[in-house]
Amino acid sequence: MTMIDAAFYRGNRIFRVERTETPGPGPGQAQLRIAFCGICGTDLHVFHGNMDARVGLNRIVGHEMSAVIEAIGEGVTNVTPGQKVVVRPLDPCGECPACKRGHGHICHNQKFLGLDTDGAMQELWNAPSHTLHVLPDDMRLDHAALIEPVAVACHDVRMAAVQQGEDVVVIGGGPIGVLVAMVARAAGGNVVISEVNPARLRIAEDLGFDTINPAESDLKAMIDDRTGTKGADVVFEVSGSQPGVDAMTAIAATRARIVMVAIHARKPQIDLFQFFWRELQLIGARVYEPQDYDQAIALVAGGHIDAQKIITNVSPLADIQRAFEALDESPTAMKSLIKVGE
Amino acid sequence: MTMIDAAFYRGNRIFRVERTETPGPGPGQAQLRIAFCGICGTDLHVFHGNMDARVGLNRIVGHEMSAVIEAIGEGVTNVTPGQKVVVRPLDPCGECPACKRGHGHICHNQKFLGLDTDGAMQELWNAPSHTLHVLPDDMRLDHAALIEPVAVACHDVRMAAVQQGEDVVVIGGGPIGVLVAMVARAAGGNVVISEVNPARLRIAEDLGFDTINPAESDLKAMIDDRTGTKGADVVFEVSGSQPGVDAMTAIAATRARIVMVAIHARKPQIDLFQFFWRELQLIGARVYEPQDYDQAIALVAGGHIDAQKIITNVSPLADIQRAFEALDESPTAMKSLIKVGE
Ligand SMILES: [Zn+2]
Ligand SMILES: [Zn+2]
Ligand SMILES: [Zn+2]
Ligand SMILES: [Zn+2]
Repeated sequence: MTMIDAAFYRGNRIFRVERTETPGPGPGQAQLRIAFCGICGTDLHVFHGNMDARVGLNRIVGHEMSAVIEAIGEGVTNVTPGQKVVVRPLDPCGECPACKRGHGHICHNQKFLGLDTDGAMQELWNAPSHTLHVLPDDMRLDHAALIEPVAVACHDVRMAAVQQGEDVVVIGGGPIGVLVAMVARAAGGNVVISEVNPARLRIAEDLGFDTINPAESDLKAMIDDRTGTKGADVVFEVSGSQPGVDAMTAIAATRARIVMVAIHARKPQIDLFQFFWRELQLIGARVYEPQDYDQAIALVAGGHIDAQKIITNVSPLADIQRAFEALDESPTAMKSLIKVGE
Repeated sequence: MTMIDAAFYRGNRIFRVERTETPGPGPGQAQLRIAFCGICGTDLHVFHGNMDARVGLNRIVGHEMSAVIEAIGEGVTNVTPGQKVVVRPLDPCGECPACKRGHGHICHNQKFLGLDTDGAMQELWNAPSHTLHVLPDDMRLDHAALIEPVAVACHDVRMAAVQQGEDVVVIGGGPIGVLVAMVARAAGGNVVISEVNPARLRIAEDLGFDTINPAESDLKAMIDDRTGTKGADVVFEVSGSQPGVDAMTAIAATRARIVMVAIHARKPQIDLFQFFWRELQLIGARVYEPQDYDQAIALVAGGHIDAQKIITNVSPLADIQRAFEALDESPTAMKSLIKVGE
């Protein structure tokens, strides 16, 4: 047993950093010395109390992390102490119809690490070794904390099969939208970001993207203009809004692929006639598969993700409460990291 | 010039069979001696007056046809007089973004033969030779009149990439739904038809399909039961209704493909969350490509389409008015053919 600092979600917008004991790594586990852990939108949902039934009031959250292997448990052969790693925080059941077909990332009984189990907002974390991806020795561990959200974007772009030279529109320029845009750009797409928030528009432009504010301009007319009336070959709906859903069919080219990245809690109205008439495809995409992690690591290592601009805040673990409050209130924040280790 | 009988749409639910002159085939045309022509749902829309702006009041409709080559015009090398043929009634522009990408079947400026031009409800029809598919010599010409709607079903099933042993649900058991079900069965799918109309349910059962009446049984529970809770690998939404759209996501397996066959004039509400959560795909499918015609001809020739049960009425051209009226009033009619030639 080792004494460590860990941040516990205690309900009602409260995280408490407490001293706690942690055992060594069990069989099949690696003990990770956490370096950085990003705050995910899902973690904000926990903070808001929306996920109390799932996470309880004694949970260490965190899954957008980077670490160094501290120790390995019995039977672990894929990593060695001292290596830099990230966790792909999925622990599928192996038994359900999705798992049996090789789609463990959308397992019907998925355990998401850092929500359904304790996660990375602690100094030492024992994680299943099958979830680990080894990083290049020279990768910065703050940048590596972006690999999980970048892997989400890699999965979205891979499901869309974005090709060199295709016209791509990302509807919604928040943290996920911007990462999707970066990965689509790295795949060779001509990317435009549609976003209504002026602060986010400035960030997207600062990252080198063409932008359109559909509240001020006619989005469809502008996309028609850019594409010689063809429309967008690929559309990523990241806004989660009815206007975003209206736009996704309006700007799509014949046979376009539309990727559903956003979580629509309501059931929006969709122009299904356009799906028939122009043979559009709607592709649902969720989390990531191992190859998406491999690609995300390569993109971060290759400098295709402008980590310096995406990481807008770094706070020590002791300040996690303030970091969540600040992120919750900021319309311009992209990614907030918690520096967990020394 | 030759004198022929032709059926003209004269507006307000009136077809008139009149004697008229027709020239010989122009360059690139073949003159077809029409044998049979089916009445399509689109032709019923014309009959109802819903398409007057598009077709005018002097139009010879008809595109679900079979014929024998009577004569060929200058430059025609792909057919010879005496051959049995069907027309793939699409005349794309060749210039628009869809055409340029090889998707002429969804050309932005499509001329649909028999709607935007005169069609097959006449004894002799001059049609572009590039639209012709040659039939086996021994094919029955009444059965051949089903090739066009069968090709629609072939396109739908090909877009879904139905594999041997997959669980397939067709929502909507009208003429198109039944043909989709037959083609999906020929592709190896385990097909169930969901339909609320008792007469249509009887026909579907008579054609050897398992059926579910979602007005009387819990469709999702029954599909779960059939598939060991996996759900349907492929769903064809042919009903054009909100309950059909609700059902399509409810019964879909993880990573299922849902094909949008129906024309939804309204914008229904869709459970987009399920697309994200279970990585569903929605695939729009419209008309057909040349290979779909080739497959449709092979399926009809091979006896995979139960033509005798699908053709529920055959009327001579002189009785076209009564045939339209009867089809319009019958809930059980599947396919009505007009016998155009002797
Ligand atoms: Zn996350
Ligand atoms: Zn599973
Ligand atoms: Zn038709
Ligand atoms: Zn065209």
